[in-house]
Amino acid sequence: MKQTYINQLKDHIGEQVTLKGWLYNSRSSGKLVFPQLRDGTGIVQCVVFKGNVSEEVFEQAKSLGQESSLIVHGTVKEDDRSAIGVEIDVSDLEVVQNSTDYPITPKEHGTEFLMDNRHLWIRSKKQHAVLRVRHTIIKAVRDFFDEQDFILADTPIFTPAACEGTTTLFEVDYFGDEKAYLTQSGQLYNEATAAAFGKSYAFGPTFRAEKSKTRRHLTEFWMVEPEVAYATYEDMMDLGEAMILFIVERVLKDRREDLETLERDISVLENIKAPFPRVHYDEAVEILQEGNEKGALENKFEWGGDFGSPDETYLSAQFDQPIFVHHFPAAIKGFYFEIDPERPECALGIDLLAPEGYGEIIGGGERAMDLEYLEKQVEAHDLPKEDFQWYLDLRRYGSVPHSGYGMGIERCVAWMCGIEHVRETIPFPRMLYRLKP
Amino acid sequence: MKQTYINQLKDHIGEQVTLKGWLYNSRSSGKLVFPQLRDGTGIVQCVVFKGNVSEEVFEQAKSLGQESSLIVHGTVKEDDRSAIGVEIDVSDLEVVQNSTDYPITPKEHGTEFLMDNRHLWIRSKKQHAVLRVRHTIIKAVRDFFDEQDFILADTPIFTPAACEGTTTLFEVDYFGDEKAYLTQSGQLYNEATAAAFGKSYAFGPTFRAEKSKTRRHLTEFWMVEPEVAYATYEDMMDLGEAMILFIVERVLKDRREDLETLERDISVLENIKAPFPRVHYDEAVEILQEGNEKGALENKFEWGGDFGSPDETYLSAQFDQPIFVHHFPAAIKGFYFEIDPERPECALGIDLLAPEGYGEIIGGGERAMDLEYLEKQVEAHDLPKEDFQWYLDLRRYGSVPHSGYGMGIERCVAWMCGIEHVRETIPFPRMLYRLKP
Repeated sequence: MKQTYINQLKDHIGEQVTLKGWLYNSRSSGKLVFPQLRDGTGIVQCVVFKGNVSEEVFEQAKSLGQESSLIVHGTVKEDDRSAIGVEIDVSDLEVVQNSTDYPITPKEHGTEFLMDNRHLWIRSKKQHAVLRVRHTIIKAVRDFFDEQDFILADTPIFTPAACEGTTTLFEVDYFGDEKAYLTQSGQLYNEATAAAFGKSYAFGPTFRAEKSKTRRHLTEFWMVEPEVAYATYEDMMDLGEAMILFIVERVLKDRREDLETLERDISVLENIKAPFPRVHYDEAVEILQEGNEKGALENKFEWGGDFGSPDETYLSAQFDQPIFVHHFPAAIKGFYFEIDPERPECALGIDLLAPEGYGEIIGGGERAMDLEYLEKQVEAHDLPKEDFQWYLDLRRYGSVPHSGYGMGIERCVAWMCGIEHVRETIPFPRMLYRLKP
Repeated sequence: MKQTYINQLKDHIGEQVTLKGWLYNSRSSGKLVFPQLRDGTGIVQCVVFKGNVSEEVFEQAKSLGQESSLIVHGTVKEDDRSAIGVEIDVSDLEVVQNSTDYPITPKEHGTEFLMDNRHLWIRSKKQHAVLRVRHTIIKAVRDFFDEQDFILADTPIFTPAACEGTTTLFEVDYFGDEKAYLTQSGQLYNEATAAAFGKSYAFGPTFRAEKSKTRRHLTEFWMVEPEVAYATYEDMMDLGEAMILFIVERVLKDRREDLETLERDISVLENIKAPFPRVHYDEAVEILQEGNEKGALENKFEWGGDFGSPDETYLSAQFDQPIFVHHFPAAIKGFYFEIDPERPECALGIDLLAPEGYGEIIGGGERAMDLEYLEKQVEAHDLPKEDFQWYLDLRRYGSVPHSGYGMGIERCVAWMCGIEHVRETIPFPRMLYRLKP
């Protein structure tokens, strides 16, 4: 008999169906057992009445352990008390495997234990909800760019050179002949694909060998990186804003139940509206210095510095929307940034800071288009000249103004879900001391 | 003035527009110059009449080198001779950069030269077409699974252990403490996510350190891997068939022009229809032995062997559709395959062979569900027992029959495009001796 999925049960009221899944929870009372079945698309309560099934099936139903795999035959009945509007009146039940001593019980477990059992933990309601939100965010991001005629042009994972320094790179032995480095960003390659396709994006895993153990860091994380020819840093603020609004709308539409499972304050997401404030770095410095005077920030922030986590949190707390900061000091930005001709100490970089202390989720800006300037930058940053010739070719042959940005998916998921740590936003997180399972 | 993209020009006939792009080609004749402008979405012929522009602009238009970046202002005119139905009557032209000595000219170049200039080569008509087909295939694959309620659950790139032996793995030093290996397949992790979500898929880069230099091999390639709980190997043939039909239909609908650019025999794709023949390995052996007797195959294929490239080509040439082969000898398959209970020497594996000599594009099957059997297999295959405990947990706690497969994107793109070598199917290919640009 063909399987019906739990998220489709509402279309089968009154019908006899076969469900295949796992026991999420169960209770019994006299002649009744109430197994809760999950199948990955939802959870439904089943009712096993002693009079409706064989003695053997009834005894089995009573003795099943958590996460036992089972096939349930029964009739779909409307039920107003149920979160999904239906329950199953069981006529028969096949136990595929009676599972005993499932390690993750409804009681509290420590994080290390749960992370060691990540392959099982993802079956739990909250983890399940987070990863479904992740799915929807990724789908939304791709749809957003595809609908605007961007071409997906994935950039290589193995790169011969570093985009921004080598200290945070993972090194790979490439057939004994060469060293390869795992990409930190597809940006340089995106600049080539944007010159070919006008509008392009890459979306893949990126890697940082950072020895930091914070709630915002993974060694392996996914990033979407659009790049647009003939676009300015201001266009990127427009694009990033539109993308975020598109994501929020989609998540609210498709994942409201999951947000409720996560006890997310949904009103915060519902209030996100354009335009997002656009704050010049000079102004951000003033705000941070005021924060220090008021005693809200420990250190006095000086012009020229890069924002730390407390700075980002304080800045974004002054606004009720995500905020763009632009015109960062050139000295703290990558070699490839375009410079403001009227303020040569400023790079045309943009960051988007998420509200509620989630920090930077978008970073990007306008790329330098002048060959001579970039040749000097490659030298000034001590980069291996030879490895950057292909990149400089993009300025030799039809150079155009162009801009792009990157958004880290895991931080975006953490923000949407309102959860503390990025380790729960990816199926199998990789961190400083975490390579398993 | 806002930019209009070339693929939208047909909606702007009679209007004054601004185009931003690069000079693809040009010719002139007396008082007329005909620059062909590309902007990544298409190519349009522009007409610069001496009487319509300043003397300076006319002289500039005549002297532009290939791939010069320029902004064109003009009126959109209907033109039946044009492939896109319009041309541009130029009123003004701004040269962003006059490019000289662009390395890739319309004349023939050697492959190594083109690969060294991959960052520029992707601007050429054919490469452009291939990568647009790639984009559409990836989009189609994702839409196919998303529309059927699969959850995207990306599996880790860094893995502690090998799925199928360690000789073809890239090794990474993980903070000096541990060795990590770059994933060859997300399958084992997919089995965990399918138990959580019922239907899941992973879609990311995978890595093989194979020292083979064939037209079918990349060291870094993208793979989509669906996995379904309570599904059999036969269900996977249904799913794979439906997926291929979905891809073919989408490519024919959205990328017909690109296929024409590639001089692809489109009728071959139009003739692809279900059901795809399903050939038992026993039967495949017979066909190959007949081929040998007829003199079409050099070696006599013996039961128990794995197909080589000539075998795959010969087999698929006997049918006019892609074909599934199933029931491979267990001895040549991974440790995790389910075994046919009536033919224990056969694994419930499936491969899909593409027609026209493109070989295997799908590989998968049913996974063993019995804990004891798998424990023995881990031991028999000399795998590090400790590293597989999490995987065995999937059989300890709610084991179910389940199946999945993987499809390599680059081989699928090569097949759809009808091109010889996979190196042209990815923006920046990585091969045995190719790590740049």
